Amino acid sequence: MDPIRSFQQLAGHLSGSGVRRRIAVVCGSDSSTCQAADRALAGGFAEIVFVGRTADVRRRRAAEPFPALVRYVDAADDASAARLAVALVRRGEADVLMKGLVPTDVLLRAVLDKEQGLLPPGSVLTHLAAAQLPAYGKLLCFTDSAVIPYPTPRQREVQVACAVRLCHALGVAEPRVALIHCSEHVSDKFPHTLTYAALAAAARQGRWGRAVVDGPLDVRTSCDAAALAVKGISSPIGGQADALVFPDIEAANAFYKAITLFAGAETAGILQGASSPVVLPSRGDSAASKFYSLALAALF
Amino acid sequence: MDPIRSFQQLAGHLSGSGVRRRIAVVCGSDSSTCQAADRALAGGFAEIVFVGRTADVRRRRAAEPFPALVRYVDAADDASAARLAVALVRRGEADVLMKGLVPTDVLLRAVLDKEQGLLPPGSVLTHLAAAQLPAYGKLLCFTDSAVIPYPTPRQREVQVACAVRLCHALGVAEPRVALIHCSEHVSDKFPHTLTYAALAAAARQGRWGRAVVDGPLDVRTSCDAAALAVKGISSPIGGQADALVFPDIEAANAFYKAITLFAGAETAGILQGASSPVVLPSRGDSAASKFYSLALAALF
Repeated sequence: MDPIRSFQQLAGHLSGSGVRRRIAVVCGSDSSTCQAADRALAGGFAEIVFVGRTADVRRRRAAEPFPALVRYVDAADDASAARLAVALVRRGEADVLMKGLVPTDVLLRAVLDKEQGLLPPGSVLTHLAAAQLPAYGKLLCFTDSAVIPYPTPRQREVQVACAVRLCHALGVAEPRVALIHCSEHVSDKFPHTLTYAALAAAARQGRWGRAVVDGPLDVRTSCDAAALAVKGISSPIGGQADALVFPDIEAANAFYKAITLFAGAETAGILQGASSPVVLPSRGDSAASKFYSLALAALF
Repeated sequence: MDPIRSFQQLAGHLSGSGVRRRIAVVCGSDSSTCQAADRALAGGFAEIVFVGRTADVRRRRAAEPFPALVRYVDAADDASAARLAVALVRRGEADVLMKGLVPTDVLLRAVLDKEQGLLPPGSVLTHLAAAQLPAYGKLLCFTDSAVIPYPTPRQREVQVACAVRLCHALGVAEPRVALIHCSEHVSDKFPHTLTYAALAAAARQGRWGRAVVDGPLDVRTSCDAAALAVKGISSPIGGQADALVFPDIEAANAFYKAITLFAGAETAGILQGASSPVVLPSRGDSAASKFYSLALAALF
């Protein structure tokens, strides 16, 4: 498989793959969620169960396209819609959970419920995104701009694992994962840099299959070979990172907001660590971004 | 004075202002530092003292332009060049200190020296940058991507003060300073957000003259009125921030590297808090960026 280098290629790959994921959409009556779902249906890689106030969804999907691929499950309120959709996934009747017009905390409460949720014991829920940047020649994955504030060493290990897994799913045979820091120095003033060497060593020992993990590197030396050379640094990432693991949510979020606002980036994001991928867009995300997120989730 | 909205306007403003700053350049024999210095000389707002191995500098400046505005002071090594340049500033013979091809720690050691340095007792040294982004209609200042790792409340107060001062110097009558966080919620999980309300209140009481300070806001809600509206947030920043104060160096650095690498941003940066502004570029910075940094320093 050739590496998937853009969201358009991702959508094309899924359309041609014979994959068909069953997606439970919670309260998907808003325009951008409906558009994203219909685009996934048109792409041939999705069946959709709309869970919530389905009269609203039907009104929005006036022509009700792809009737054979769509189900509606009624729920009286946000919380019961979230619980019903989670139950569909638990019973094996849906493969992916997607948030529509429901508050994030309501959906996450259903996902995280100890008895009836989607989180295997001991698992780590983390957010993983992919960005398509006009100034970069391939998709750039990054974590975690949304869920884990200050990752523990164990949580960071899971983040690396998720990043590698996503890159593999995108067809990158040996993904390059950069561990981000404001400089290239390991220092006990920045405790997370002390754990970076251990992660790089684990990768060399094959912990995550074929993958190169290195750091500390900053965003520029991770993604620009010339900047790496100017600084006189040698790194197996070679200025061609496929994924960036940020030190904390503040850095990842600043990166995410900067590239979407100022660099024309398209992004897609999913939660990993639950028994199924969860698509958890922000209200402000475009229909395109929600569709790309669905496509990303459909890889798993 | 109309607000200065681009580095070109900044250079033009300085050229027309009658200001002439004396700049002590430490080990400025590299091409981009010489080009930046010569551009400041051509702009009519600088005199330069090159301190270091001056034979190397003269070789680089082959035609030795603007001889009446240039002095050379010889020093045998980096450390003595740094000390000599700092001494020039202390004696009032230079207004601005600029780093050339000298390691940052060598220059900072001379600046921070308790007896012979440039740091008034009790002052806070912090880095302040300005970015010119093709996708934003004005200069966007931000702090601190380089010096203070995790600002204390007192240090953050100084960062706000420096940001306001720079915006005022750029002619922004009532600068809008956004206190950045990954979300808009005040939470004791993120202790710095607890201090943001106090800073906003101090601004309302006029602590920094005319200025609007608000947060927590993320980068997008700070700089995009539509994103603010979608989230249903009301903020006096109004999506038109003039300056961003980041929670820590990781977030600020990720922002800085993302906008320069992916968003075509030009940036300029200075250290504030010393008795004179210090221009401390990275080796990889372009001649243009070093020139803009000199221009920014010349405002003070």
